[in-house]
Amino acid sequence: MPLPPKRLLLTPGPTPIPPEVVAAMATPLPHHRSPEFKELFVGVLGKLKAVFRTTDDVLLFSASGTGAFESAYANLLSPGDRILVVTAGNFGDRWVKMGEAYRADVEVLRYPWGARPDPDEVAARIVGRDDLTAAFVVHSETSTGATADLQAIAEGSRGRSAVLVVDAISSLGATPLETEAWGLDVVVTGSQKALMTPPGLAFASVSARALERSAQATNPRFYFDWARTLAAQRKGATAFTPPISLILGLDAALDRIEAAGLEAMWERTRRMGAGLRAAVRALGLELYSPDDPDCSLVTAVSLPDGIDGDAVRLGLRDRHGITAAGGQGPLKGRIIRFGAFGFIEPLDLVAGMAAFEQELAAAGHPVELGTGVGALTRVLAAAPQVSA
Amino acid sequence: MPLPPKRLLLTPGPTPIPPEVVAAMATPLPHHRSPEFKELFVGVLGKLKAVFRTTDDVLLFSASGTGAFESAYANLLSPGDRILVVTAGNFGDRWVKMGEAYRADVEVLRYPWGARPDPDEVAARIVGRDDLTAAFVVHSETSTGATADLQAIAEGSRGRSAVLVVDAISSLGATPLETEAWGLDVVVTGSQKALMTPPGLAFASVSARALERSAQATNPRFYFDWARTLAAQRKGATAFTPPISLILGLDAALDRIEAAGLEAMWERTRRMGAGLRAAVRALGLELYSPDDPDCSLVTAVSLPDGIDGDAVRLGLRDRHGITAAGGQGPLKGRIIRFGAFGFIEPLDLVAGMAAFEQELAAAGHPVELGTGVGALTRVLAAAPQVSA
Repeated sequence: MPLPPKRLLLTPGPTPIPPEVVAAMATPLPHHRSPEFKELFVGVLGKLKAVFRTTDDVLLFSASGTGAFESAYANLLSPGDRILVVTAGNFGDRWVKMGEAYRADVEVLRYPWGARPDPDEVAARIVGRDDLTAAFVVHSETSTGATADLQAIAEGSRGRSAVLVVDAISSLGATPLETEAWGLDVVVTGSQKALMTPPGLAFASVSARALERSAQATNPRFYFDWARTLAAQRKGATAFTPPISLILGLDAALDRIEAAGLEAMWERTRRMGAGLRAAVRALGLELYSPDDPDCSLVTAVSLPDGIDGDAVRLGLRDRHGITAAGGQGPLKGRIIRFGAFGFIEPLDLVAGMAAFEQELAAAGHPVELGTGVGALTRVLAAAPQVSA
Repeated sequence: MPLPPKRLLLTPGPTPIPPEVVAAMATPLPHHRSPEFKELFVGVLGKLKAVFRTTDDVLLFSASGTGAFESAYANLLSPGDRILVVTAGNFGDRWVKMGEAYRADVEVLRYPWGARPDPDEVAARIVGRDDLTAAFVVHSETSTGATADLQAIAEGSRGRSAVLVVDAISSLGATPLETEAWGLDVVVTGSQKALMTPPGLAFASVSARALERSAQATNPRFYFDWARTLAAQRKGATAFTPPISLILGLDAALDRIEAAGLEAMWERTRRMGAGLRAAVRALGLELYSPDDPDCSLVTAVSLPDGIDGDAVRLGLRDRHGITAAGGQGPLKGRIIRFGAFGFIEPLDLVAGMAAFEQELAAAGHPVELGTGVGALTRVLAAAPQVSA
């Protein structure tokens, strides 16, 4: 039996966990009503605001990102309310289904999978619409690697009546997102992406306008109720028993981000994405995700005809210990996705690319070993290393 | 500055975490779509059924216990449905409020705080009632220490039309609860009590009857949708990114319970509760929780007039590192609560009692040191130790 390889997650979430986050989660739990926890929690809420780039309250939920996103439907809408959902992939489609589950009157603005939404078109569908209660936009569509131009959408729809809700689950912390400066009403993210903490925590920033609207909404909610959550948080407490170990870990992860600098993290993702795209081209492969510096969080590679994407992905995993993501929905077996954020660092990508080259060759794609790695390294070497 | 004391949680949740659970959570995360995770998850679901004592599916949520409990309101009810909520304390009151938030027609059967619900009366309010969609009962009312006679309630209401939903958040694993044999439809618990895992996971077992009813219920749900959760679980997967680290920990905790034997865990809680009650009486104090072997999970001690319960509790914490729980709602400052389940073991209670005696003396209650500890130890010594 061969030696089992060291395992490395190169997926767009969950991402690897830094050692000091693991260590923080292994300390004995403080009780959630203790002054020690209160101090921890108040500190975490403040550090989250810094990453969200806002002075709005950031609400913390014991849930996956989908749960925190659902809080927007439950708190903002009444049955029959008209909403706009923009979709260009698997997660956008999920939010359409969620709107239907909440019996909203769902208007869908659909783009082909892999496309970037046209920001002017999206803004035009939101602005000047008094009939629209809320609009739901995905920032980074993890299923395809396409990132929306959120700034243009937000600024193009200024003065809107609708509350703008953003799925930033895989983007926040990894790419520029200015909640307050761009006037985003509700921004949702999870712990297991750029925040470098295991899954189980999710967050929603809520603007004053969003909170006002929620007072009128009649959809039922208790666990995800914003007012209840906010009332507790303003006292430095949680409405329900929180995931204490994950909050201990998140605190250490937020310290890591603060020490590295948020802008440096954004820049590193941009650099890593550029390197991955250069490697893909050098290997004679096509990009599925847009060939654009703004789409650097998730790099999706199309597999050539005759190459089984799942076989390559399983080879990466079983022979090299590298977990990359496959295609979702109609893309199953056709693409491989690499994440480039969180605790995935440049040299991790180099390792992943070296393994990818070998698996491509094994699957029958002509590869001179080192071609992709060289292209990747040349881009990475052009900038100073940033350690987060 | 004095040496900081070793910290010990003697609260009725969260309870201390066994070292092998901590170690399991510190291993690198497997991706949640990997075969490794699937094997872990399928194993955990099977072990949960053993602790729930049922062949019904046990649904796993990334949430606190309140979230999993809310899933019953979202999946079983339509607006205006009539429900019965039995309350005798803080948590029962929470479920009344949740029913109101869901715009159910809530019928409240209210007992004084600290009382045990009369099982015949509860059963009579449920059985033969075609107008009742669901009945909500708290097994162990953590705020008071009173445990309901769930078996009598369930068996007395056999043939009921209503779906019986049980809050077993602090009871499951610590005291006899036979989901299938007693015919309980929905049983909810959380990870941070007898299951010895940090908070962040919650569970609901669902009977075939409950699942059938949920198909007719029109309340909106997506994240907590039973059908979606069950469809994923039957494939060994989760509908949304799960709290992987907590599931790794839970697996180790469930192995610990299996190795010790669930009945032995129940018996140990019974013994520890008996010991605590004997100690309270030996110290000349009154029990607030019922003086009954069935109410051994949480022992609530009334503080005599003139003794400030919060001062005693804070002395325990700051001078001895012992966290006990205070009173909630109207009981604030009037009682102190000790948990006796999960990874709280007999000698932990001895340590807690030695500290409690000192703090009582410091607060002005006449105590001969060793009196409570002696009474506790005599009860504990009468049975063989069980290590869980």
